Amino acid sequence: MALIVQKYGGSSVADAERIKNVARRVARTKDEGNQVVVVVSAMGDTTDELIRLAYQLNRRPDARELDVLLSTGEVVSSTLLAMALEDMGYKAISLSGAQAGVKTDTAHSRARILKVDPGRVVRELERGNVVIIAGFQGITEEMDITTLGRGGSDTTAVALAAGLGAEVCQIYTDVDGVYTSDPRLVPEAQPLAEVGYDEMLELATYGAKVLHPRAVELGELFNIPILVASSFTDNPGTLIHGGASMEVRNKVRGIAHDLDVAKITVVGVPDRPGISAAIFVPLANAGVNVDTIVQNASIQNITDLTFTVARGQLEKAMEVVGPIASSIGARECVSDSHLGKVSIVGTGMQNAPGYAARMFGTLSEENINIQLITTSEIRITCIIDESRVKDAVRALHRAFELEEP
Amino acid sequence: MALIVQKYGGSSVADAERIKNVARRVARTKDEGNQVVVVVSAMGDTTDELIRLAYQLNRRPDARELDVLLSTGEVVSSTLLAMALEDMGYKAISLSGAQAGVKTDTAHSRARILKVDPGRVVRELERGNVVIIAGFQGITEEMDITTLGRGGSDTTAVALAAGLGAEVCQIYTDVDGVYTSDPRLVPEAQPLAEVGYDEMLELATYGAKVLHPRAVELGELFNIPILVASSFTDNPGTLIHGGASMEVRNKVRGIAHDLDVAKITVVGVPDRPGISAAIFVPLANAGVNVDTIVQNASIQNITDLTFTVARGQLEKAMEVVGPIASSIGARECVSDSHLGKVSIVGTGMQNAPGYAARMFGTLSEENINIQLITTSEIRITCIIDESRVKDAVRALHRAFELEEP
Repeated sequence: MALIVQKYGGSSVADAERIKNVARRVARTKDEGNQVVVVVSAMGDTTDELIRLAYQLNRRPDARELDVLLSTGEVVSSTLLAMALEDMGYKAISLSGAQAGVKTDTAHSRARILKVDPGRVVRELERGNVVIIAGFQGITEEMDITTLGRGGSDTTAVALAAGLGAEVCQIYTDVDGVYTSDPRLVPEAQPLAEVGYDEMLELATYGAKVLHPRAVELGELFNIPILVASSFTDNPGTLIHGGASMEVRNKVRGIAHDLDVAKITVVGVPDRPGISAAIFVPLANAGVNVDTIVQNASIQNITDLTFTVARGQLEKAMEVVGPIASSIGARECVSDSHLGKVSIVGTGMQNAPGYAARMFGTLSEENINIQLITTSEIRITCIIDESRVKDAVRALHRAFELEEP
Repeated sequence: MALIVQKYGGSSVADAERIKNVARRVARTKDEGNQVVVVVSAMGDTTDELIRLAYQLNRRPDARELDVLLSTGEVVSSTLLAMALEDMGYKAISLSGAQAGVKTDTAHSRARILKVDPGRVVRELERGNVVIIAGFQGITEEMDITTLGRGGSDTTAVALAAGLGAEVCQIYTDVDGVYTSDPRLVPEAQPLAEVGYDEMLELATYGAKVLHPRAVELGELFNIPILVASSFTDNPGTLIHGGASMEVRNKVRGIAHDLDVAKITVVGVPDRPGISAAIFVPLANAGVNVDTIVQNASIQNITDLTFTVARGQLEKAMEVVGPIASSIGARECVSDSHLGKVSIVGTGMQNAPGYAARMFGTLSEENINIQLITTSEIRITCIIDESRVKDAVRALHRAFELEEP
């Protein structure tokens, strides 16, 4: 008898009919002889509606109160799913994050899970129950309710799978799994049957919206296989795990992109120690999230320093950097907010320079100008003009033969 | 510095504007130098909507799950009120019933409060917080959430007032307090400035909808003065307490009525021991709530036995009583579903037969036929034809001079 953790997102439990659909899927897994733990998100737009209400009453709602408020959304969907299962003749019980033993730190609205005490969940499983757990929430040592922020329910599911020693964590959502690229951009994009944790992490961080990086990291840490699949179809989905076969690894796995990129270049910076700190420490203090940083080799002790930020933070970043640029003797400070990012991701490229050459060559053939390049061990990213991102993704998808099933 | 418990009902917190209105009232009480504990109901129709959702998924939803579901409604309004108070510059914190120490038995959907452990509430008050508590809910010894059923938030408020030793429990609702009669029926009905617990209990049980009898009983048990007033006006409301002055007590306090009455008469019952039990034990087992019971003096060892039930239970009651009537040798079993009840209530009538005479005389003058009479120490109730209830209430209101302020 295997123990399986399933997670269903907000769109999968948006109304009574969809909750019944989820109940049928859970029942099927139970009928196959498994113990089943289910993590649910809040129904549809519930969380947004609660946030809207909160801001009607207070423009800066207290973080503790907001967490208590938002946590009710997942409690509602967990009880409703339990009722739907009971209606089909299955034993089921709903538990809040607190009851399920999800212990977090005290960082309200973006708490991190410290540990999972699965005692109550195990007892309920032993009683033959399907255990439905409210996702996105936990409890501090002082018994205050917290929420986990973006990707919280995915993270809850993987953390419970780790705490319970589950065989697999299945994340059901409104897409069919992880694709070689965004199917809305590249119609010939192919679903991936499997992908490595590192690759998924690069894909997730660099623009794929399917699964939050926190959940992938946690899966890798505890070596929990994660299946991402649709709750609306019976397509097989994508299995994210550590043991992808050698042959499969030796390839570009997917093309990620991001359209929300702005660039700042500090031109003519004297190349001496402490310059980077002088720029990036004040930016961090101002809450600006700097992404890619590139510093060119200096010529006659003068260099250019370029970095990217999300478009919404460009104005604030310029306000911080402008005065600093003058004070350190830089020539000027220029920005461009119409940029995008395109990345090729795959464990196979680790020791194979041919991938970079093929990427740059493909973009060149398309007459796409590369403004910045950054790489990790399993990823190459080019920053290009926003208007050419779509062309770049499609050309790269073809060049790396990802349209072949 | 006095400690005051306030309770606001669902219509008082139905939307953001009304929650702000409540926050201003709470703030005023705090500004007057009091410690304030607030108990809130769920917003407007929230509870009904959650119940509707539950029944879409399961025609007989599990009581434990339903309680978890419904308890979220009060948690939402409690956090929103805390946010509204913080927005006005007041320190506030919301607590669930469980966090506020409301311990109940395990009777889901109609739990009784066993005790209140006010430790956390006291600590939060000492920190200068207004403490907002989700009403209508508690927690069992096994840490399962329960709800208290009808009148639950009123009961929460009075129980907390008792547990905290509060000076007064103020119940804010959408009516101006307790009236000498239903103002929709009797335009000249007057608000009562004060009323005794026993009188309020008779008024509440016998048709006044203002405050649930459970809350009144609890107030009497712990001698907590309860103010019932409107959250929409500054009218003084009605103070329910044990020490009403002698002069005020020596009067009829109000006229209650109830339009939901059906009557069953078992005709020609042999008058021997065990007959009542033979009828009423099976009725209780069938879940029929019997109200008034009247047995006439027997003539030649034959008597008639009459009792009333709510109209919705008449059919079931007849199904139970019919066969029993035959088996015990009664002549027949007849029913009437078009009845109403009218009561005069007042501590003053205790040793004064004049009240009964004046009541019967008034109904007689109005040509209203009395079908049954029952009395308690402070109440006289007549069961009459439904179509004459309105006339009876008005006539009695005049006869006992209740229209005088």
